[in-house]
Order: sequence, then C-alpha cells, then structure tokens
Amino acid sequence: MKIDAAYYTGNGSFELRQVEDVPPGPGEVQVETAYCGICGTDLHVYLGHMEARIGDNRVIGHEMSGRVSAIGEGVEGFAVGEPVVVRPLAHCGACPACKAGHIHVCHNLKFLGLDTDGAFQNRWTVPAHVLHKLPAGMALDHAALVEPLAVAVHDVRRARVAVGEDVLVIGGGPIGMLVALVARHAGARVTVSEVNENRLKLAEDMGFATANPKREDVAARVMAETGNKGADVVFEVSGTQPGVDLMTAVTATRGRICMVAIHAQKPQIDMFRFFWREIELIGARTYEITDFDAAIAMLSDGIGVETLITEIRPLAELPQAFKALTENPNSMKTLIRVSEEAA
Amino acid sequence: MKIDAAYYTGNGSFELRQVEDVPPGPGEVQVETAYCGICGTDLHVYLGHMEARIGDNRVIGHEMSGRVSAIGEGVEGFAVGEPVVVRPLAHCGACPACKAGHIHVCHNLKFLGLDTDGAFQNRWTVPAHVLHKLPAGMALDHAALVEPLAVAVHDVRRARVAVGEDVLVIGGGPIGMLVALVARHAGARVTVSEVNENRLKLAEDMGFATANPKREDVAARVMAETGNKGADVVFEVSGTQPGVDLMTAVTATRGRICMVAIHAQKPQIDMFRFFWREIELIGARTYEITDFDAAIAMLSDGIGVETLITEIRPLAELPQAFKALTENPNSMKTLIRVSEEAA
Ligand SMILES: [Zn+2]
Ligand SMILES: [Zn+2]
Ligand SMILES: [Zn+2]
Ligand SMILES: [Zn+2]
Repeated sequence: MKIDAAYYTGNGSFELRQVEDVPPGPGEVQVETAYCGICGTDLHVYLGHMEARIGDNRVIGHEMSGRVSAIGEGVEGFAVGEPVVVRPLAHCGACPACKAGHIHVCHNLKFLGLDTDGAFQNRWTVPAHVLHKLPAGMALDHAALVEPLAVAVHDVRRARVAVGEDVLVIGGGPIGMLVALVARHAGARVTVSEVNENRLKLAEDMGFATANPKREDVAARVMAETGNKGADVVFEVSGTQPGVDLMTAVTATRGRICMVAIHAQKPQIDMFRFFWREIELIGARTYEITDFDAAIAMLSDGIGVETLITEIRPLAELPQAFKALTENPNSMKTLIRVSEEAA
Repeated sequence: MKIDAAYYTGNGSFELRQVEDVPPGPGEVQVETAYCGICGTDLHVYLGHMEARIGDNRVIGHEMSGRVSAIGEGVEGFAVGEPVVVRPLAHCGACPACKAGHIHVCHNLKFLGLDTDGAFQNRWTVPAHVLHKLPAGMALDHAALVEPLAVAVHDVRRARVAVGEDVLVIGGGPIGMLVALVARHAGARVTVSEVNENRLKLAEDMGFATANPKREDVAARVMAETGNKGADVVFEVSGTQPGVDLMTAVTATRGRICMVAIHAQKPQIDMFRFFWREIELIGARTYEITDFDAAIAMLSDGIGVETLITEIRPLAELPQAFKALTENPNSMKTLIRVSEEAA
C-alpha cells in the first residue's frame, strides 16, 4: 500500500513523499504510527550535525506510539490493532557490553529511526522483540512520551534515588523535566535549576521547587535548605561548564551525580570534591527493557507527563514543526500526528 | 615520665625533645609507639604545604604500631603490653555526614597526628575507641602498614572489585601498590601503570603486570589484552591530567573508576565517555572501622605488604629520614623505630 513518509534529505530539509510500505518479514511486525515526538537528537539531525551518520535519504523519528497493522511470519502474541510503542535499539550480541548483559549500551548499538528508517511514516516495520504493549485506554498522544520517559526512568534508577532524598535537576528541558517527575514519583524532594524563565514557570506549575543560577547561588541555597547537607542526588542535564561546577558544589557527602547530558567538550571537573566527600558520578544512557515497562506503568498511573506536550501537528507540517522548535527555546515537546486514523 | 618526641617546628624542620608524657585521662589509653611510617601527608607537612593547619609545635605521625602502656579511667577490655594500632580519626557526631553514619568523612573530621599530636613520640595518648588490637605474633614493623593498607582496603571496597575482574592501578606509589595488593587479594587481575622504572621493577617483582605510559599506549594495550572490553575497575592514584585521560579511555562499559588521588587542580575530564559507556566514578577517602579490621586480617594472612618497607630508622634520625624521602623518588615506605623496647 501507499503510505506517507517524511524523509530527511540533508542540509536541514525534509521531503514528504508517498512510498510503498515495507511488509513485515519473518520475526517482524508492522506498526501504524499514531504519534511521534521530536527528540533533541532529531533536532541535531535537522541542524545538520549528524549528516555522516544519517545521510540524505532517511526517515527519522523514534518517540512513537501506534497500533499493530501487520504481523510477520513466526511472530506470536500480537494482534492487529493492538496499541504498542517501540524500544528503538538494536544490539549486536557479540561485543563486551552485550556479553556482560548490557545490551542497551552495546558497542555497536544501532538506533532505530537514526541508523535505520524510523517512525515519521504511516507504517513502520520493526523486529517484534522491540515492541512493548500499551494498556487499553492509554491515550496514544501521551504514549508517544514513553520513550523519553524511559530515559528518565533509567537515569533515576541508575542514580538509585530513594524515598525522602533531596534531588537537584540541573537543566529543565524535556529530559530534565521527565527526570524531575520520575524522581518525585520515587519519593524525592525535587528542585529544578534552569536559566529559561518560561521553563522555570512550567516547572513551578508542575509543583517543583525551582532555582535560576543566573539570579541566585543555587549551591548555597540548596545547602541552606538541607541543613548544610546538600543534594543527595544531582542530575546533570545541562551539558555546560556551569552545570558541572554546580554539580560538584551541591552534592552531599556520599551523594550521587547522574551524568545525563552529552558533553561534547571536556569540562574541568572538581575531582578533589569527589575524593573529599566520597561522591559518585554515574553515567546513564538510553534504557533497559525494564525501564520501558516501568515508563509505561508510570504513564498509565498518571504522573503528569502530558503537561510537557507543547503542541501537536500533522505529518504534513513536520518541516514547519522542526523550524518552529529551533526558533522557540520555550517549547518542550512537539508531537507529530503521523496517521490520522490511528490517532 | 620523660619521653622522646619529634616536633615539627615549621619551615621544614623537626626538633627532637625530651618532654613529659601525657597520662591517659578517662576513656583514654596511652600507647608506647613501636614503629611509625612516614606518610605522603607527613611529607607535605615537611615540605611546608600545611603550615596553617599544623603550626610550628606539633608531633605528627599516624601510621603506627605499638603496645598499650597505660589505661585511663573507665576503659575496659585492654591490658598493658597488648599490641595495637590507632585508627587516627576523630569525628564530630553532629554534621550531615556523621548523622548519615559516614563518620570517616565527617565534615569536621580531625586527623590524629595532624590536627592533634601524633605518633612520632615514645608515648601517645588517644581515645580508647580508636584502638584496634593486633593478633599475637604479628611483627610490629609490618603492623605499621595497617593504616595505609586500610586506605587501600577502603578503596577496593568502594570500587566493588569482584573476583576475576581486570583492574588497572594508575600510579605505583605506596598507596597504589597497596591497592594493587588488595585488589589481587580480591581475585582481580591487576596491572600497575607507573612512569618510574624502579617502582615498575618493584611492581614486577611483586608479580603484577606493569605498563609505562611513557613507553606505550596503556589504554590500547589493556583493550587488546581484554578483547576490547577494557578494565573493569581503574584506580586513579596519580593525581595528574594524563592519569585522568587514561582512566576514561581504558575503563570498560559499566566499569568503575575509583578516585583515590588528590587533584589540587581541576583536570579536564571526558564526561562524554561516562555517559556513553555508563561508567561510574567513585570517590574514596580515609577508611571505615571495618576497613581497619580487614587490613589487620589481611596483613596477618600475609599478602606481601612488607615488601614495600624500604628502610627503618631510629627516631633520632627522623629529620634525615624525611630529607632522604624527598630526595629519592624510588623509595616506597620508610618506618621510624620510635621506641626500641616496644619494637
Ligand atoms: Zn529520544
Ligand atoms: Zn553489542
Ligand atoms: Zn597516612
Ligand atoms: Zn561530623
């Protein structure tokens, strides 16, 4: 059948095309994409930062929800029409990380929707084992947030956030806000540090304590508020030198810092503080299978992730949606309604 | 009674004096010091780096062994003549670290032998609760290594070294070598990276694999030797920028880096690598009570720490011993024989 698909064609441009769908082969399932969010990585593609990896003929998109539309040979346990999301990772099975069971950080990890065609098309064919079923009745626009929520669940689990702990999230973009939501769900008292006033306002509206490092000494304030203890857990989501300066200054003795941000440069880090206060730094990347299941359960319980959806646009307006996102630093999450029937 | 004591009098000089001993008050025990090692921190004192903290009238020394010589009021469970070592930490009991049970990294931690008078004197009076008994028959010169060995035990425990793991120790000074010994005792395959050829030779003689970053690409070699996995655990004991560059390059996916060194400057760190490989960085400082007990047990089992004793000198030669240590980068551990009778 003919389907609509948005192709990234290089140099920051997309082309909407009508193409033939890919029927599911053995072990595969075809999904009718309902919604697909625009991720920070997708924006990097749009801004031309990943041309070598993406090429000029690629359907991107991975933060998706949809319904099973066709089932390949040998696949059991799925029915056409069932609501699902995709965990968009393909591991090699043979590298040291895979051998140790850490398939989500496989040394040859392929990301579906970057290294393969993705979800900005009406029909997406993927291996059956990357599908996670959604509970009946879950709104499919909300479900498009399962993938970034799974990132946040992974971060909070890696950082071992425990009930009653003081948590500081440095950087209040979409991932920072999701981390804040999951940490609060884990029973922590959460403060969000962010420089954009509109994002701070949103964080406040969501019930978080907020701090703007441009207006106040965030470390001093957290120390004062915690009886000079500091934050038990800090999430560095800003990717900046001031962010890493704050993280070492604010973390409690024996506290944990979770490195969520991608630091393209090598920042200067206060190593003495790690020694002196026996601080831990914990890297966290992508998600494990159980993080996806937990994200679906949390979204089903209702922890307020839908507040992060700034706008929803049809597939035909995908180029405009990308342009708008790069021009508006206040925007959180834009969803593309990929198939009207499924949504 | 009159005792001999070595006073640090500022400006890199020591003065040997005959002074009155301090009888143990309530809750205290007086120990006749047998041996006391010269620690890296003691060398910093000698080099004038800690004048504000130490002053010009201080007996330093904390890596000691000895025998109980007098027992204060209300102290039970000790007998005169018993061999003991001192865990030279005094915590406040009221700060956030103490409240959380991490008394060894108390925010107001006092170090006996730096912030109070120490063990370079015939009789040392300390609170009874800092004493650890030694098994009968343990050589007291070897026992002077319990304190630095406890540092190494703490580091290896913090890093969660497990049997069969590949461990790289960056920096082959006394602490690095003790870490290597304890990690091997934990069942790890240990490589020591060091630039001083004499220290490398000693590490080889002790049965460790060795690497000299001045002669080879240590990260590339460890990768090759581990099937491209890398080191499961890395101990950064060098305190240098090349050391932290190596630590991020060589650590396996999901591996752990233990920050043992004191980095006075803020080095540039490859944060991307922490994210990408989900690496952990773990700060480690001083020791907990159980680390001291474990160090005594290991020393009693015989893991070869005595190999690190370069020379033993009488208290009268303490000034010369400090001078010799700063002039000889090959030397590992110098012990001072503080009391001839006890030793
Ligand atoms: Zn994403
Ligand atoms: Zn793999
Ligand atoms: Zn010491
Ligand atoms: Zn304290």
